[in-house]
Amino acid sequence: MNQPSNFAIPNDINHHFIETPDGRKLHVAETGDGPPLIFVHGWPEFWKSWLPTVNILNKNYRCLMPCLYGFGLSDKPGQLSFAVDADFHAKDIDFIVNELCDTPAILIGHDVGGYVLQSIGNSGLANYRGLIFFNCPTASVGKKWVEDGHVNQIWYQSFHLTDLAQELVGYNRDTTRIYIQHFLQHWCHNKSCFEPVLEEWVENFSQQNALTGGFSWYASNNKKRLATLEGKIKIPKDKISIPSAILWGKHDPILKAEWGPFVFQHFEKVELAYAENSGHFVHVEEPNLAAEFINKNFDEWQP
Amino acid sequence: MNQPSNFAIPNDINHHFIETPDGRKLHVAETGDGPPLIFVHGWPEFWKSWLPTVNILNKNYRCLMPCLYGFGLSDKPGQLSFAVDADFHAKDIDFIVNELCDTPAILIGHDVGGYVLQSIGNSGLANYRGLIFFNCPTASVGKKWVEDGHVNQIWYQSFHLTDLAQELVGYNRDTTRIYIQHFLQHWCHNKSCFEPVLEEWVENFSQQNALTGGFSWYASNNKKRLATLEGKIKIPKDKISIPSAILWGKHDPILKAEWGPFVFQHFEKVELAYAENSGHFVHVEEPNLAAEFINKNFDEWQP
Repeated sequence: MNQPSNFAIPNDINHHFIETPDGRKLHVAETGDGPPLIFVHGWPEFWKSWLPTVNILNKNYRCLMPCLYGFGLSDKPGQLSFAVDADFHAKDIDFIVNELCDTPAILIGHDVGGYVLQSIGNSGLANYRGLIFFNCPTASVGKKWVEDGHVNQIWYQSFHLTDLAQELVGYNRDTTRIYIQHFLQHWCHNKSCFEPVLEEWVENFSQQNALTGGFSWYASNNKKRLATLEGKIKIPKDKISIPSAILWGKHDPILKAEWGPFVFQHFEKVELAYAENSGHFVHVEEPNLAAEFINKNFDEWQP
Repeated sequence: MNQPSNFAIPNDINHHFIETPDGRKLHVAETGDGPPLIFVHGWPEFWKSWLPTVNILNKNYRCLMPCLYGFGLSDKPGQLSFAVDADFHAKDIDFIVNELCDTPAILIGHDVGGYVLQSIGNSGLANYRGLIFFNCPTASVGKKWVEDGHVNQIWYQSFHLTDLAQELVGYNRDTTRIYIQHFLQHWCHNKSCFEPVLEEWVENFSQQNALTGGFSWYASNNKKRLATLEGKIKIPKDKISIPSAILWGKHDPILKAEWGPFVFQHFEKVELAYAENSGHFVHVEEPNLAAEFINKNFDEWQP
């Protein structure tokens, strides 16, 4: 069981609002001192998802928790956007890191963040010390997205493309709660781990355009997603050369742990480990394990 | 444009409530005199869906419009049932026909009803004069359910298996309206054809257990659906021998007209025609064409 203190706001929290060259305001929460760690969240998440893990690591690291464009306290598109794919967010994250960090950072990603980190890894955009993933779906998953009954897990990825989703989920605060709570429970092994902060999540996703902002990821990733699940996606020729490590929640019902070994087709140097008591949200379900995993890899990746 | 009168209740309407051997009450609406036609509806529908077509045909036929178990004015399961598949409904329809008809009937099916008619056709349950389908998905569709981006159309079939669907759609009458209206518009070529009766649909699906009843079809058909879309379904060796005819709405976004020719693998003797100005609901979008199609085939199938 997570206690509310897992999600406590650190005393030294500092909120940056950084303007991109094209005039979008991106929020980045900061806590702690030391070498920089950048935490890139997924859906349905925002910067606060990282607090259980960051409340352990901020003793030794400078922890930066951006909200992706469309999420949390960052600006949001006014309507469903098809232009905010992983490459788009990758440029935002790289911009933030360049603005805020003087020394090479480690990027930590989950869910949408995992795609963003792969985009950064494939682009050779900048100089990063390492990439850490909590569960890491790669293009090699391919048709497995719709095999062995898994098609019944991925419906929301299609639903999010419809106007219906915005109307129905955004009908009022209750329907937003019903929807968000479903995923925060269904995708967890520890079903109650988000319970202490459920109302904060509801508040977040009840903000103007917050649902649309999140759904825009699915709209923007749709073409690649379809190509992947139809087995038509091109696997990048060059593997990601930044040292990488993946801690995969064994019980994730949406990003299946059995997809883990595919990562070796995508990373030159990668460690793959499993979190035995987590589902989708290792950083919330087993924050001590997540923090330890980051610590260990930081030490191994010392320049 | 449909006028409200398309859906007018005929003056001679008669409501049967028939009890099955296991004690379930099934509703059957009846209008007209003559040779019997049995109309088997889909989701999200109930007996009233047939009125635009039946208001033309009841001059010459005895039109029987059952509500499937879980739908309309029939009894409904109190929780999501995994036991009400096409074979289950087929037995109900056959029971109703035996109770109410003395002469061989023609069965007319749509959507769920199309699966029910195929089950009857494959079982050799009874003596029917013919089967008429408005759009007819067969097992041969297979992986096409998830190819060419079609996975983005079928999300509701998975969503309906979740408790979330009942909670969110059933939150109140407005959310039920938002949900049902989406399908009544999205699946139509003539977007406004259900407009005159939208509130009647909302009233119907706001009844206790009406959402659960409809969703139970998806729960009960889930195994076969997964086997089909994963290309693992067994195609019945023997083709359906009852004379059959299919009028397929050219613009149906969910049951694609290009799947039409698959029917020749499943029926011994079948006519396949297309309704050029319809989507999913030929019987509502082009009722004159639908009625004419039934008339024509009735004449051809004279014993």
